[in-house]
Amino acid sequence: MLIDGTHYRSIWLAEDGESVQIIDQRKLPFAVEIETIRTWKEMVVAIREMHLRGAPLIGAAAGYGVYLACLELVAADSRGFDVGLERAMTELDAARPTAVNLRWALDRQRAALAEAGPPREKVAIAREQADAIAEEDVAVCAELGRHGADLLAGIAAGNPGRTINVLTHCNAGWLATVDYGTVTAVIYESSRRGLPLHVWVDETRPRNQGALTSWELSHNGVANTVICDNAGGHLMQHGRVDLVLVGTDRTARNGDVANKIGTYLKALAANDNEVPFYVALPSSTFDPSMERGVGAIPIEERNADEVLQVRGHDGTGESRMRLYADGTAAANYAFDVTPARLVTGYVTDRGVFDARHLADGLRGTNRG
Amino acid sequence: MLIDGTHYRSIWLAEDGESVQIIDQRKLPFAVEIETIRTWKEMVVAIREMHLRGAPLIGAAAGYGVYLACLELVAADSRGFDVGLERAMTELDAARPTAVNLRWALDRQRAALAEAGPPREKVAIAREQADAIAEEDVAVCAELGRHGADLLAGIAAGNPGRTINVLTHCNAGWLATVDYGTVTAVIYESSRRGLPLHVWVDETRPRNQGALTSWELSHNGVANTVICDNAGGHLMQHGRVDLVLVGTDRTARNGDVANKIGTYLKALAANDNEVPFYVALPSSTFDPSMERGVGAIPIEERNADEVLQVRGHDGTGESRMRLYADGTAAANYAFDVTPARLVTGYVTDRGVFDARHLADGLRGTNRG
Repeated sequence: MLIDGTHYRSIWLAEDGESVQIIDQRKLPFAVEIETIRTWKEMVVAIREMHLRGAPLIGAAAGYGVYLACLELVAADSRGFDVGLERAMTELDAARPTAVNLRWALDRQRAALAEAGPPREKVAIAREQADAIAEEDVAVCAELGRHGADLLAGIAAGNPGRTINVLTHCNAGWLATVDYGTVTAVIYESSRRGLPLHVWVDETRPRNQGALTSWELSHNGVANTVICDNAGGHLMQHGRVDLVLVGTDRTARNGDVANKIGTYLKALAANDNEVPFYVALPSSTFDPSMERGVGAIPIEERNADEVLQVRGHDGTGESRMRLYADGTAAANYAFDVTPARLVTGYVTDRGVFDARHLADGLRGTNRG
Repeated sequence: MLIDGTHYRSIWLAEDGESVQIIDQRKLPFAVEIETIRTWKEMVVAIREMHLRGAPLIGAAAGYGVYLACLELVAADSRGFDVGLERAMTELDAARPTAVNLRWALDRQRAALAEAGPPREKVAIAREQADAIAEEDVAVCAELGRHGADLLAGIAAGNPGRTINVLTHCNAGWLATVDYGTVTAVIYESSRRGLPLHVWVDETRPRNQGALTSWELSHNGVANTVICDNAGGHLMQHGRVDLVLVGTDRTARNGDVANKIGTYLKALAANDNEVPFYVALPSSTFDPSMERGVGAIPIEERNADEVLQVRGHDGTGESRMRLYADGTAAANYAFDVTPARLVTGYVTDRGVFDARHLADGLRGTNRG
């Protein structure tokens, strides 16, 4: 999508073909900085420290991480290749626990590499797979966007001429994928078709990914207003939200949705106010091996400093402040699970399904 | 309550008897600064700009604001007394729209002053009333605390030896009242009785009043952990919350509760997880003239900068940062209304009631 009118993806192979470039999302929305990642260990850090984030993008990054590991192992000593590769995969896998795409991308690389020949051939295969994961993500998001735009057109048909208000949480934007996004693919495609749209953007504490969402929507011409995470219920009570549309880091077979902490609260408010609650779900994020999500999907606990401190811009540059008195204790749960009973439907690259038809609808799309 | 071992109230008449002192809550938790308020106009600013906040404290501040106005009007020109006083009352009334205590304190002063004689006598009456409002608030909070502690003892009896986890939102602490607090009166009294307690403190964006709650709990020896407003639903899903206890800025006759934005979302989560949801309600905050709250109680919209910027400590001193890209739009709703159907009970200075018995239980306590 566009930054100041120029098209970017969120991750790409550098011109030398031997390093990977990403937009360092920790610097956004105050600065656009391209980071070059040359080793698989740097990729582990980039994933764990959230230089990049978003389940689909984490999957693509893991794919490229395996490619970087293959390159390094061939250059170093091909005899240790298999052991070294397994170690890289293990560390990449441990970088973030909740997003299923990470595991999925690694499994895909592992399966492809198992059939490949000597290390040099494996390097080529790993690159091919990494590129394919990224390209497929772009195609999946585009397709998801078209199905979602059809859904929004249906909602708009009941409200001719009126601006449709979408509430979203976190950043399920192009920055969370390779391009287009999931939630934002729906928004961008609807906007392209001429639907009058406005987006309520939850700021999404503690990391304020709403700042990313607002930034990317504004760069791509979509009207939006940032609100505190506390405000959505009030807006829904007063008829100011036509639908809630959020992303997911992992969705279980029964339709339970792991997504950024706070999503569950918005689903409850949508349910209480009869506002449709949809999940934008690229098929790679569906985990049919998990029967249910509540109490089962692992929930990442991150450093309390993410709650106690905040990052912003002090007028001269990026800076960091603490929000609480010295010695304050804090807990930082990164995700929660929204039970399927609160989800109106799932917008996928295969179409829009309710929870009962989700597993059938996505059969064969991933982890087949 | 205690700050570094010394007892403070949140508002008091200065030694000269002609000015009012408060703790400037904008400076907390990083610095304890006493502000001296010498004129009713300074009191309007202190209320509007939230040097002080919390419905009961706003009521007490309005009472003292009327006293300051009487003092000034007598000193200036007694002939303009009644007109000047009415103007002061009007501006005090407009300083914050949601808390009912503000209007109630002004009505009480107005009624008392209507029966008083010449201006000099009115000054004495206004001081007496302001002191009485403050003293009664302290007594009401203490009584509320005792009833609430009985309630918590009942919950603890079902879980012998286990720490009771209370989740609260915003600051219904002693800083929101004259002393003890409402939610915190329950906590302090339970703690005094030896109940093992831990408090989950919602940070309460956009103004992070959770920093006040955490600060005052810590200064008074109560274990607490700050969480993002997004986290409460997840904690309740996992059995980590025994009850939710929040304050209120205005409660309607039917039991609908106006409180800090985001309260409604916690009430929904409590309901969904069968966690008891209680409201600490000093009788002065009950508004029997309002039949219902949803769609009826006026909801203050504050400056978007409170969302777009954040205040903290940068290591050398208090500072302010922006969180979003330049030109980002934001909306800032200060309160929401939780429907009575989601409230398990109301902890008042008269006892604990459910919504059906609330109006009867509080009959005669206020606004006669």
